[in-house]
Amino acid sequence: MWGTDVQCAVRRGLNGTSIRDLAKHARAPLGSTYHYFPEGKQQLATEAVRYADTMVTRILRKELDAGPVAGLHAFLALWREIVVASDFRAGCPVLAVSVEEPPAEEAAPPALLAAAEAFDRWEQLLTEALRVHGADPDRAPGLATLVVASVEGAIAMCRAKRSMEPLDRVAQQLEALIVGALDRPT
Amino acid sequence: MWGTDVQCAVRRGLNGTSIRDLAKHARAPLGSTYHYFPEGKQQLATEAVRYADTMVTRILRKELDAGPVAGLHAFLALWREIVVASDFRAGCPVLAVSVEEPPAEEAAPPALLAAAEAFDRWEQLLTEALRVHGADPDRAPGLATLVVASVEGAIAMCRAKRSMEPLDRVAQQLEALIVGALDRPT
Repeated sequence: MWGTDVQCAVRRGLNGTSIRDLAKHARAPLGSTYHYFPEGKQQLATEAVRYADTMVTRILRKELDAGPVAGLHAFLALWREIVVASDFRAGCPVLAVSVEEPPAEEAAPPALLAAAEAFDRWEQLLTEALRVHGADPDRAPGLATLVVASVEGAIAMCRAKRSMEPLDRVAQQLEALIVGALDRPT
Repeated sequence: MWGTDVQCAVRRGLNGTSIRDLAKHARAPLGSTYHYFPEGKQQLATEAVRYADTMVTRILRKELDAGPVAGLHAFLALWREIVVASDFRAGCPVLAVSVEEPPAEEAAPPALLAAAEAFDRWEQLLTEALRVHGADPDRAPGLATLVVASVEGAIAMCRAKRSMEPLDRVAQQLEALIVGALDRPT
């Protein structure tokens, strides 16, 4: 849908190895491996979340310079590639960690704290880009949260349906919204 | 945020026991219980997804009669109650099942198929309500998918952050979007 230019943008920020690594990480947190290595689960989950956070942050910082729509395209293209390349078996490890029930006996586990930090950082980067490019400063945080939440939710829906349609639909809605938000009368 | 009227709407569709049951179900699919009963995991996960699907479908059918905004409020209020009542430990079982890596050796597991059906049904109900209440028929499916995806994603973000802010922000954006979509010039 986004064409080769955006795929290239993602590949500029990443490389083939990174994509494969993230796909591997993305499949790890809830995979059966953990049933056999329960003591290493939290560490591996935290590592997977931090890996995804670093990669997304790097891409967003780079692509958002050209504007919020370019940033959105790169964010979408990254997840599309992860989901498609894994045949719907991998998704976002930050989301996966967030929906796991934390252990009853302890405070928030490190992986969950890392997930919260990742979401905060992505929202913050999108908010800044929206403001810099002319969106209403008061509306920017809400729009940034909507972008992150809907893309994350759509990745999960794609995996359940074994179809990229949810992400494509969300992409279209978000692009129209962002274009509209930047195009406000001054 | 939505006030007691919407909480009451949710309670009309549900009752205290249903809420507690869903919270219990919602915590089940990825809980540690499954590590000790691996053979029962798929069955329990499928049951949890179907339970959530039935409950959400019942609420949407009932509340969407009053319009898409009323349906949105009830959908949001249900998940808000689940997350708050569980102290951020429970969320949507349909999402939880969707982000688990399916077993390598078999076709799509029953829980995942049930999750896909649930998402399809909720999107369909929202699409119909949007169309009946005056939204552009071509835009309605995209908007419905955006609602489901962003609410699902926001629930996960709330759990990671231990804050209801992501869902509140998404709620505000979605309500404005739906109101705008219904208010189009004829």
